[in-house]
Amino acid sequence: MIGIFDSGVGGMTVARAIEQCCPGYPLVYLGDLARMPYGPKSPAMITEYSHRNTEFLLRQGAQLIVIACNSAASTASSFLRSHYSQTIIDVIFPAVAKAAAISTTGRIGIIGTRATINSGAYEQRLQMARPDCEVHSQACPLLVPLVEEGWLNHRETKTIVKKYLHPLRDKQIDTLILGCTHYPLLKRVIAPRIGRRVHIIDSSVEVALHLKSILKADAELRTQLYDPDTPSRFFVSDMPSPVHGLAGTIFGRPVLLEQTDV
Amino acid sequence: MIGIFDSGVGGMTVARAIEQCCPGYPLVYLGDLARMPYGPKSPAMITEYSHRNTEFLLRQGAQLIVIACNSAASTASSFLRSHYSQTIIDVIFPAVAKAAAISTTGRIGIIGTRATINSGAYEQRLQMARPDCEVHSQACPLLVPLVEEGWLNHRETKTIVKKYLHPLRDKQIDTLILGCTHYPLLKRVIAPRIGRRVHIIDSSVEVALHLKSILKADAELRTQLYDPDTPSRFFVSDMPSPVHGLAGTIFGRPVLLEQTDV
Repeated sequence: MIGIFDSGVGGMTVARAIEQCCPGYPLVYLGDLARMPYGPKSPAMITEYSHRNTEFLLRQGAQLIVIACNSAASTASSFLRSHYSQTIIDVIFPAVAKAAAISTTGRIGIIGTRATINSGAYEQRLQMARPDCEVHSQACPLLVPLVEEGWLNHRETKTIVKKYLHPLRDKQIDTLILGCTHYPLLKRVIAPRIGRRVHIIDSSVEVALHLKSILKADAELRTQLYDPDTPSRFFVSDMPSPVHGLAGTIFGRPVLLEQTDV
Repeated sequence: MIGIFDSGVGGMTVARAIEQCCPGYPLVYLGDLARMPYGPKSPAMITEYSHRNTEFLLRQGAQLIVIACNSAASTASSFLRSHYSQTIIDVIFPAVAKAAAISTTGRIGIIGTRATINSGAYEQRLQMARPDCEVHSQACPLLVPLVEEGWLNHRETKTIVKKYLHPLRDKQIDTLILGCTHYPLLKRVIAPRIGRRVHIIDSSVEVALHLKSILKADAELRTQLYDPDTPSRFFVSDMPSPVHGLAGTIFGRPVLLEQTDV
């Protein structure tokens, strides 16, 4: 099974993209709603939670791990890679590779939570992928609460997005990475405010495409993971009332959620 | 010692009010930053966290517990009272008593997190304290993130506050309870938008006054808790970088924070 974890339900956008891109590969998803959000927590705490989440997914039979949470990917992926022999994919690398390839001017913007931006993970990997690039990043801590409120089209959301994007617009970026799984839900608010000509990269879509190319190249892994008769499972460490609705919205169908301790 | 817990640093407004109101009574504070915020979590999860926090404070020598978190007070205080013999004070009762006494028309408003409002705890206790009152409540989930961003005077904060308060204003309340420890920091934004004649009740101040009256009435408890030579201690379950600044802002002086597992 393909193990996927996130701090909440945002990472279900990644699960959904993988399901569409790689049909027949069962998923085991863990949303750590009991400790969410990870964005404002310390790197040590995010690493500890990511470690526990990975242990849980391996116990459930995961043979490959996708870190669907940008805050976890940016602070805990080196630890997890050094600690486990399984293949570990995170949401950062595929988005970085796409941005480095697609940008014409090399001026690339990143938006994310405070933990993601402060970690410098996107900047470092972009500099490695394309040393001539000029990276501009902006923490947008209010966007996750706004999405979770469902304020996708409110005037306040638009003015807050405009305020956050203003410095990136000033730098005339030509590519913007949405470095948080919640942000694709705001794409229609973000696009006109950053400028219609700016390429917007959705890390959920890129990680699914990256996984697809890994499976294509690795016959052994493909055989190990392909199992169209096993259904996907979705676990959460807490079950507050709005979670079912949000999961259903992301998947476009009802999703059976199972509660578990992590 | 007086034990105080909150999901984060917001409850330090309660600790500060108690320190000013009851000098010479050492405090032991726990901010559960590793699991904050409690507002969007399920009642079962909030109760479990509150239980663990109380155990921790008792191990540190607390002889009385103050639940400084409204989400915890509204969902977990009955459990804690049935489970422990120690006196347990929460932020809700004193604010309710004050509102019931001060309101002329009996039309009382409450604002808080989703967990606090959904629990109905304020409404139930207000109806008990004053059966003729008409209670109007409003969840304001974006205010905590806005305060934690330090956006206390931003235009966006003002329009969001106005939007949240609009239904309460329509109901012509004459008293408004700030049912979240973060909200007093927005008092200057809230007051003109709800109307200058509306009494605003700060639950932090009321809980400190309530504790003072309990100590005045109970000589044994006073003797047990009074200990001007023991310094107060402040624990957090995670130490993300902005926490020192926020704690210092609330106390008006540097505060030594100790990290602990809960």
